[in-house]
Amino acid sequence: MPRYRLTLEWDGRPFMGWQRQSHGPSVQQALEEAIAKITGEQITATAAGRTDAGVHARAMPAHFDCEKALDPFRMQEAINAVIRPHPVAVLNCVLVDEDWHARFSCTGRVYDYLIINRRPPLTLESGLAWRVVPDLDANAMHDAAQRLVGRHDFTTFRSVHCQSASPEKTLNRLDVTRTADRIVIRAEARSFLHHQVRSMVGCLMLVGRGQWSADDMSAALEARDRAALGQNAPPDGLYFTGARY
Amino acid sequence: MPRYRLTLEWDGRPFMGWQRQSHGPSVQQALEEAIAKITGEQITATAAGRTDAGVHARAMPAHFDCEKALDPFRMQEAINAVIRPHPVAVLNCVLVDEDWHARFSCTGRVYDYLIINRRPPLTLESGLAWRVVPDLDANAMHDAAQRLVGRHDFTTFRSVHCQSASPEKTLNRLDVTRTADRIVIRAEARSFLHHQVRSMVGCLMLVGRGQWSADDMSAALEARDRAALGQNAPPDGLYFTGARY
Repeated sequence: MPRYRLTLEWDGRPFMGWQRQSHGPSVQQALEEAIAKITGEQITATAAGRTDAGVHARAMPAHFDCEKALDPFRMQEAINAVIRPHPVAVLNCVLVDEDWHARFSCTGRVYDYLIINRRPPLTLESGLAWRVVPDLDANAMHDAAQRLVGRHDFTTFRSVHCQSASPEKTLNRLDVTRTADRIVIRAEARSFLHHQVRSMVGCLMLVGRGQWSADDMSAALEARDRAALGQNAPPDGLYFTGARY
Repeated sequence: MPRYRLTLEWDGRPFMGWQRQSHGPSVQQALEEAIAKITGEQITATAAGRTDAGVHARAMPAHFDCEKALDPFRMQEAINAVIRPHPVAVLNCVLVDEDWHARFSCTGRVYDYLIINRRPPLTLESGLAWRVVPDLDANAMHDAAQRLVGRHDFTTFRSVHCQSASPEKTLNRLDVTRTADRIVIRAEARSFLHHQVRSMVGCLMLVGRGQWSADDMSAALEARDRAALGQNAPPDGLYFTGARY
């Protein structure tokens, strides 16, 4: 049975996240319904990561199997036509071996988090960034972020709903860069705990505004206790940016 | 009577443009109604440029006079609070002399036009960019753009609804730069004719896809005839980016 590998982009604002939910629209449901209209088959789509409600994707790998053997370019065009008006687009579609798995074959995930550091409310970026009013010191944030890089028990930065077998993860990169009033936090790891990026960003914001020091960040990490978390960042600024295989 | 100078940002998608219209919402109306709620005065707001429906602003100067003397920071905060849920934000508010005029004192205007050069439909940038499917040669576009720089009769690139006294304008800059699939066209002039930027961008797109040469661009300019226009670009990608005084 052919396996199609997709690269997806979506605007997370109208969705409850990737995964099918009984209480609202999901990207998975929008995609599976579009494919059902094209192929007549009830397929299950799998993505590299399960994003939360309101989280966006710039290049999310996903796959599905179906009986119908369609040219991948035609499949891409058909999904993009049928999935409207949902804000989901297939950026790429190729056939892959059946041992390729969007989630289990993935060896690296990249998230970007966008903060807009200003007082006025957001207009063009409403729902697409976290507006933070107090002046943030991005250099201090970057320095503190380095305390989290490496292999650690990230229990402090883990949602109570996290289904991961272990709280130990290796964070390969956590870079903070500033351009004018925009601060981008890039996080890279093989995999993340549920809410890990948003939890790390929330604490980095506290460092940026001078409320936490880099040592406070280390202490929070070492506490291995969700109660030590400073703040969770909202989903608005979070983008699944890419994956490695 | 105090004169307040504002710098405005807005998402043009829900608006008929800056100017008050009988047939739909405008930025001017949203702003004037917000100020009326704050001051109890029916004021008239003037902007540096009158943008079309669907055109965005990153930093549009505007001014208004009112009897009420409010601290400018409080005025800014009050407008930003009251104007919601309209996607309009006051980025800056200062008091200026009464001879300062957002439109008539303006000596330079900058527009950016964003093209996303790809086949898949837009999601995150829907309504915020012009999606162009054929591969565009941004270098060829930049070269052809230089044919338009300088003082010219821009009749070809002028809307039939243009109210400017003369079709002669001096275009100071028309730069085309590409980063991945994003092409930004930056246009600078003391003032522009109605639809001039969108008309220039539409023709540059024809150059980018190889349908027009730089000589065709020169011929269109020299024709001084709206019928010589190749194509008008949609408002989605157009941003009023800044002004000089």
